[in-house]
Amino acid sequence: MVFDILIFNTNMIFILLLSVNNFTLISCFLSSGRSQPPFSPALEVAAAVLIRDSHAMQSVLPFLDLLGVCVFAASGALVASRKEMDLVGFGLMACLTGVGGGTLRDLLLGRDVFWIADPKPIIICLTVAAVLFFTAHVIQRRHALLLWADGLGIALYGVMGAELALQTGASPLIAIIMGMMTATFGGLIRDVVCQETPLILRKEVYATCAALAATVYVTLAGLDVPRDAAIALGFTAGFALRALGIVRGLSLPTYRPRPGREY
Amino acid sequence: MVFDILIFNTNMIFILLLSVNNFTLISCFLSSGRSQPPFSPALEVAAAVLIRDSHAMQSVLPFLDLLGVCVFAASGALVASRKEMDLVGFGLMACLTGVGGGTLRDLLLGRDVFWIADPKPIIICLTVAAVLFFTAHVIQRRHALLLWADGLGIALYGVMGAELALQTGASPLIAIIMGMMTATFGGLIRDVVCQETPLILRKEVYATCAALAATVYVTLAGLDVPRDAAIALGFTAGFALRALGIVRGLSLPTYRPRPGREY
Amino acid sequence: MVFDILIFNTNMIFILLLSVNNFTLISCFLSSGRSQPPFSPALEVAAAVLIRDSHAMQSVLPFLDLLGVCVFAASGALVASRKEMDLVGFGLMACLTGVGGGTLRDLLLGRDVFWIADPKPIIICLTVAAVLFFTAHVIQRRHALLLWADGLGIALYGVMGAELALQTGASPLIAIIMGMMTATFGGLIRDVVCQETPLILRKEVYATCAALAATVYVTLAGLDVPRDAAIALGFTAGFALRALGIVRGLSLPTYRPRPGREY
Repeated sequence: MVFDILIFNTNMIFILLLSVNNFTLISCFLSSGRSQPPFSPALEVAAAVLIRDSHAMQSVLPFLDLLGVCVFAASGALVASRKEMDLVGFGLMACLTGVGGGTLRDLLLGRDVFWIADPKPIIICLTVAAVLFFTAHVIQRRHALLLWADGLGIALYGVMGAELALQTGASPLIAIIMGMMTATFGGLIRDVVCQETPLILRKEVYATCAALAATVYVTLAGLDVPRDAAIALGFTAGFALRALGIVRGLSLPTYRPRPGREY
Repeated sequence: MVFDILIFNTNMIFILLLSVNNFTLISCFLSSGRSQPPFSPALEVAAAVLIRDSHAMQSVLPFLDLLGVCVFAASGALVASRKEMDLVGFGLMACLTGVGGGTLRDLLLGRDVFWIADPKPIIICLTVAAVLFFTAHVIQRRHALLLWADGLGIALYGVMGAELALQTGASPLIAIIMGMMTATFGGLIRDVVCQETPLILRKEVYATCAALAATVYVTLAGLDVPRDAAIALGFTAGFALRALGIVRGLSLPTYRPRPGREY
Repeated sequence: MVFDILIFNTNMIFILLLSVNNFTLISCFLSSGRSQPPFSPALEVAAAVLIRDSHAMQSVLPFLDLLGVCVFAASGALVASRKEMDLVGFGLMACLTGVGGGTLRDLLLGRDVFWIADPKPIIICLTVAAVLFFTAHVIQRRHALLLWADGLGIALYGVMGAELALQTGASPLIAIIMGMMTATFGGLIRDVVCQETPLILRKEVYATCAALAATVYVTLAGLDVPRDAAIALGFTAGFALRALGIVRGLSLPTYRPRPGREY
């Protein structure tokens, strides 16, 4: 038991380092104007670590939930900075965006809402909001950072929504849809409340990334791949696709024989 | 029991034919430019059939739920086509719109969300999305088809939201409001996410149709009219009123002594 | 027991008078063009009354819930008047806005939704909608009245969301966030559905008022101040701050070193 927790904590630290690392790299990239963020090696290391340890360790799910909260909260606070809100507005937008997707997931699955009994997610949101209120102006390309934070979030929630749906006995198809809906929900709240154009309306891949993350995870879980490896690979696939969308503007073929007429 | 199911299935086929029939007629109408869709006879036949059989048959509610999902999913996919989304975007919009109203209804009533345990509604949404992704461009007047699909949906959910609320012991007034709120919710999600003007803001009758469908159903159910007849008549009343709104621009007297000033 | 109820009712009447009084004063103020509504004395009296009686009386919470429904319903109906809707549209907007915040609160806390079992809140919403449909045009400055009704609502729900969260055993921080989220939710639905600019995007204090109301209440409740006194003081603090925001345009320092660039 103690050993399990130790391994669990070790993995948490790995993923934390990885995430902080990625975020730092992305931030550097955004300030320096380099053409592509060097996050792939870090992700591969993480995947390897997770595959190696996954038989012995507890799930990283609770931690990934908090990481998802953290990156969505950052995207909410960054939108608040674009709208020049005050500190309380930063906090509210960080909370709405950070816990929105997970709240929808819990309501749909009939679970207790994850942040009511335990204040950690809210403390994370408020901390992120406070830090960004005082530091957002040093980031040269804030909208891009918002996109990266949102991209991390949809890949994370795509996997986690699917995983929790599977745990409640939902079919694989439902699990994938749950992953996709909960992954995109926090960002939708953020954009609708702040009157930004929802990212889902942009041409590059977006919902597809959440769907890919959920599909890879559900498929691997169905093939009896160890759960944490499946989580890591699902997240990696979804985030890598979203990265291609952000950096290269990758898009799927869209419906465009003729846009709709008004009547 | 077997006989009941047989009758149930017969009625399902009747209503299915009726709906397909209506949709085909409406589509023909939309391509041909005729001035009014000839759906009234079909609806009258359906009502007659339902009244004749209603003492012996099981409820058509589960089927109507799926039909509501189907038409709202179609309206969601049609909005996705207006926004030139990709296939995954079609799927997401079809799911959000198709299951949105029913999900709100189930959350409010404390029921299990209807599409979590059973993937049928989601399969319907995805199928509708896929079909419309490849065929929507052949429909000349796509926005009008969207309005018709949405109109079918609000009449269906107006009745069903009220029926399920009554089943849980809610008062008639609450049942009517539940019908109205759940009927308009899927379309609201669709329009808000896609930055379309919500149909509720248009001048012709809209929320009124859902309210009428729910009111007719609740009133008849209170008068001990057989349930399926009450459902058919409520749906018919709501959809007929919405048809007058779409075709003739029928509107109730609106508040217009003076629009509000900005302050 | 009888005595308790008597005292409870007495307090309800006090608060009702206070509210009606405030609303009347505000309406007069809006028609007459005076520079500041004279509501502070009335609020102070109410606080004094509540502190005097609070040891002996039952909670005023159910009544405050209905009062919150009432003022939010009024704000919803006023937006409906700005959009020149019909009577049913007034009813729908009044219901969506009036019960929206409380519904979110109940869903998050896993409680039964408060208006399903008991039709009172819906009757209040529909009554408010009907009254305003026929009388809204006599109010000269309708948008200002909307702001005042909304302001009463966020102060009320800021306190009540926090109180109900505390009752379910949530931590003080969670209670404050719950208060803030449920207080702003009804108005968000109203503004998003009607394509108005959400009040949260305006420069003057808004979410801060809900946060202040919740924080004052939670702090006082933690210091064992009698509950109803804490409720009255929390509400007073939140509403007074919002009043300063509306009348004087009070705003917190906002994030404005540099608005975000697109990329």
